[in-house]
Amino acid sequence: MEPSRVDAVIIGAGPVGLFAAFELGLFGIKCKLIDTMDRAGGQCAALYADKPIYDIPGMPSILAEDLVGQLLRQVAPFEPQFTFGRTATGLRRLDDGRLRVAIDDEAVDATVVVIAAGGGVFVPKPSLSEQPGGDGGYVMKPSPVASWDLTMHDDLILVDTEKFQTSVTGVFAIGDVAWYPGKLRLILSGFHEAALMAQAARRIVRPGERLPLQYTTSSSDLQKKLGVA
Amino acid sequence: MEPSRVDAVIIGAGPVGLFAAFELGLFGIKCKLIDTMDRAGGQCAALYADKPIYDIPGMPSILAEDLVGQLLRQVAPFEPQFTFGRTATGLRRLDDGRLRVAIDDEAVDATVVVIAAGGGVFVPKPSLSEQPGGDGGYVMKPSPVASWDLTMHDDLILVDTEKFQTSVTGVFAIGDVAWYPGKLRLILSGFHEAALMAQAARRIVRPGERLPLQYTTSSSDLQKKLGVA
Repeated sequence: MEPSRVDAVIIGAGPVGLFAAFELGLFGIKCKLIDTMDRAGGQCAALYADKPIYDIPGMPSILAEDLVGQLLRQVAPFEPQFTFGRTATGLRRLDDGRLRVAIDDEAVDATVVVIAAGGGVFVPKPSLSEQPGGDGGYVMKPSPVASWDLTMHDDLILVDTEKFQTSVTGVFAIGDVAWYPGKLRLILSGFHEAALMAQAARRIVRPGERLPLQYTTSSSDLQKKLGVA
Repeated sequence: MEPSRVDAVIIGAGPVGLFAAFELGLFGIKCKLIDTMDRAGGQCAALYADKPIYDIPGMPSILAEDLVGQLLRQVAPFEPQFTFGRTATGLRRLDDGRLRVAIDDEAVDATVVVIAAGGGVFVPKPSLSEQPGGDGGYVMKPSPVASWDLTMHDDLILVDTEKFQTSVTGVFAIGDVAWYPGKLRLILSGFHEAALMAQAARRIVRPGERLPLQYTTSSSDLQKKLGVA
């Protein structure tokens, strides 16, 4: 089967992967998100969907599942593609410079790859779970990305704090899977990392474009992309 | 007059200053926020209070004044002190290691100082404004902090990306006034910077404490501080 093509593959459709698709969308970059789970939300959906979070900036309290819902609404204008229930198992550079992501037995070619896979991948619990009530839940397994040829820091992916790029050009890592000095595994840090990653990814996907920083509050161009102009 | 004392002085009560008080509050650090304006909100209140922002993570659209209101609600459990209509004009190290912040003709002594003053300070427009309808608005002037003895990058304060500390130990800079490679002047970056700053500030204010990362979703200690336990 011929590999499909997209500007950016985002591995992981948790809060940070969703916001990465939003930030890339502001630059007109089309994204495909891949997640082992059968829906978006990552840890927020798998581990504490019905629990309140109190430290998302500007939200005195929000249920994890509601945060996921709001992030899905926010990214919706950019119509990201979702591939659920599939695992990104391999990554290699093609002769033309693009990156080929293996997804089980399929493949997708992308200009940039963003790893936002949290600390691992969530897979359904075995149906004969020893834990009462465990059926229907998820357990976390190490992500296959840990075995890719990226410079690691223990079991996390080393990135710089300017672009959140890994040791491989065009491959970025953000959220809980990324490490740099001072790294905190907070959702809000993943959001910041997504914004800076998007600036760097844009330079790769659209190398000729002028790059003034635009604000959604004042830019009619961004508002048009968001469908609010 | 005897200087007052507080754990942390935050210069600037815009969105980033407010969230800094929240993050420090999670560690039990008491804050005084100083702002030249007569209310909280910084640029969000002075320049575009009634305008929607579309790129705050998890908020598809929010008016700038509503974002400020929500940040005030979020920090309220920690009862920060606000000093409005006053300008921080000077900073010096005392013999005992604390920092003395001059506020016009008063002073306050703090263990750490967080500069979150945006690109400058907002002062009321002159009443004989040349702009029709200009009365009641604000204009931005350079902040006096630019003249303090901190290493600068052009007119911004150079910080590291681990602690967001300036060239002076115990003095941090976050938000639009701070610079590091890749810096974007986005509200969401200021939020991330506030979280990492708070970790470093805690080590100075409470050097003996153990430092496991706690989550508001699962920590009964943090929930008690927030008044939601």
